[in-house]
Amino acid sequence: MTAMTVELTAVTGLPMIRPGDDLVGLTVGRLAAEAKSLRDGDVVVVAQKIVSKVEGRLVRLSTVEPSDLALALARDTDKDPRLVELILSESRRVVRSRPGVLIVEHRLGFVGANAGIDQSNVDGGEGGETALLLPENPDASAERLRAAFFDRTGRSVGVVINDSFGRPWRIGTVGIALGSAGLPAIIDRRGDADLFGRTLRVTVIAHADEIAAAASLVMGQADEARPVVIVRGLEARGPSLPASALVRPPELDLFR
Amino acid sequence: MTAMTVELTAVTGLPMIRPGDDLVGLTVGRLAAEAKSLRDGDVVVVAQKIVSKVEGRLVRLSTVEPSDLALALARDTDKDPRLVELILSESRRVVRSRPGVLIVEHRLGFVGANAGIDQSNVDGGEGGETALLLPENPDASAERLRAAFFDRTGRSVGVVINDSFGRPWRIGTVGIALGSAGLPAIIDRRGDADLFGRTLRVTVIAHADEIAAAASLVMGQADEARPVVIVRGLEARGPSLPASALVRPPELDLFR
Repeated sequence: MTAMTVELTAVTGLPMIRPGDDLVGLTVGRLAAEAKSLRDGDVVVVAQKIVSKVEGRLVRLSTVEPSDLALALARDTDKDPRLVELILSESRRVVRSRPGVLIVEHRLGFVGANAGIDQSNVDGGEGGETALLLPENPDASAERLRAAFFDRTGRSVGVVINDSFGRPWRIGTVGIALGSAGLPAIIDRRGDADLFGRTLRVTVIAHADEIAAAASLVMGQADEARPVVIVRGLEARGPSLPASALVRPPELDLFR
Repeated sequence: MTAMTVELTAVTGLPMIRPGDDLVGLTVGRLAAEAKSLRDGDVVVVAQKIVSKVEGRLVRLSTVEPSDLALALARDTDKDPRLVELILSESRRVVRSRPGVLIVEHRLGFVGANAGIDQSNVDGGEGGETALLLPENPDASAERLRAAFFDRTGRSVGVVINDSFGRPWRIGTVGIALGSAGLPAIIDRRGDADLFGRTLRVTVIAHADEIAAAASLVMGQADEARPVVIVRGLEARGPSLPASALVRPPELDLFR
């Protein structure tokens, strides 16, 4: 058994990210400015908000026309009808609604509040209030970032796009992986023997979610303060699988 | 904004832990053997399994007499009736049961499979099959460990007792905090302003759960391989709160 250390380091000094920004160039530039560089096997964790921003997933609320369903649901949940319209347009179905609460199944299968749409920390500028949607396809975004890091540095890194989600049964949010590339989002060790030779039973590990939660520890609470974190020292353990593998199929879920 | 690095380091070379072992003495001894030491503000994450073991929470299945309810539920779930009896004795109520699945609300409020009772990696010895229950009171266990670390080293550390739990909606397990001491298990920033001066809305962070998940990354999959992890570099941010604060009260939960 070897010593095992994992290091989580925030990339500091990034500017406020804007649509169209070159996230990889900015990150590599900041690392170079601090005499740091990426290594093969590093995992770069990027906050969903800045990925959504560079991808232009901002919507001005003044441009949104709420449907009758959105109007009714907005009344039930005490939310802005235009925001509810956006939430519905990003979702497959409503899972729970209560005053102040709208939990939906996002079109990509994520279950959470408001389809991951956020108004905080988004600079509306002069166009009025804006909302920020999740990336169109976070696994594809992660793969693009991974390819760009390789092009720029020659290093093969993993990428995780994380976001803070609430959970049933427990208070508070934790970082989870919305998208990933170049690493096993889940590690399936069913059938392996444990230290006593007995077969391990519950051994599907949500590896990318654990990476996402760990990175949240250094991102700070106002998510954009330190939106990129380098994770170094993880054991490579298993074939690459995207974060979509973390979504439990509805028919295998006992809680929706 | 300062640079921010968090380091997760497994304590290596610990022996297989047995009931009554001095976990703190063993940990401090292994650190010293590698010329390491604890610092004020470090968080020591300890796997639930070894805490349960030192506390003698092993039960020989041959000593368990299943009730009629346990027998019926064992049939429904394809589980050992003696194990089901233990699960029920540790629980407030059954949340879901299906063939192969028994999700309960543990007497301490944790919702999960089998009341956290584990048979893997537990050395039954000659007495036959054994099960390992969660610690009687994980927050109290964490507090005792924290006090013992202080007595032994003069260092004021935080302690988290972690375990791997499944979640609704997502595949795989992640590390969560069953018990903690000397740190804010949750950080409540509701009402603080974000980077744009807008009020943050969803800002209760499950800090101890994120620490628990991060530590899982270096513990290895067979949990006892590296059951103690030192987390260094976390920002101190808020009053100490035990992990019991992470349990969502049933009346505020939409999913049980």
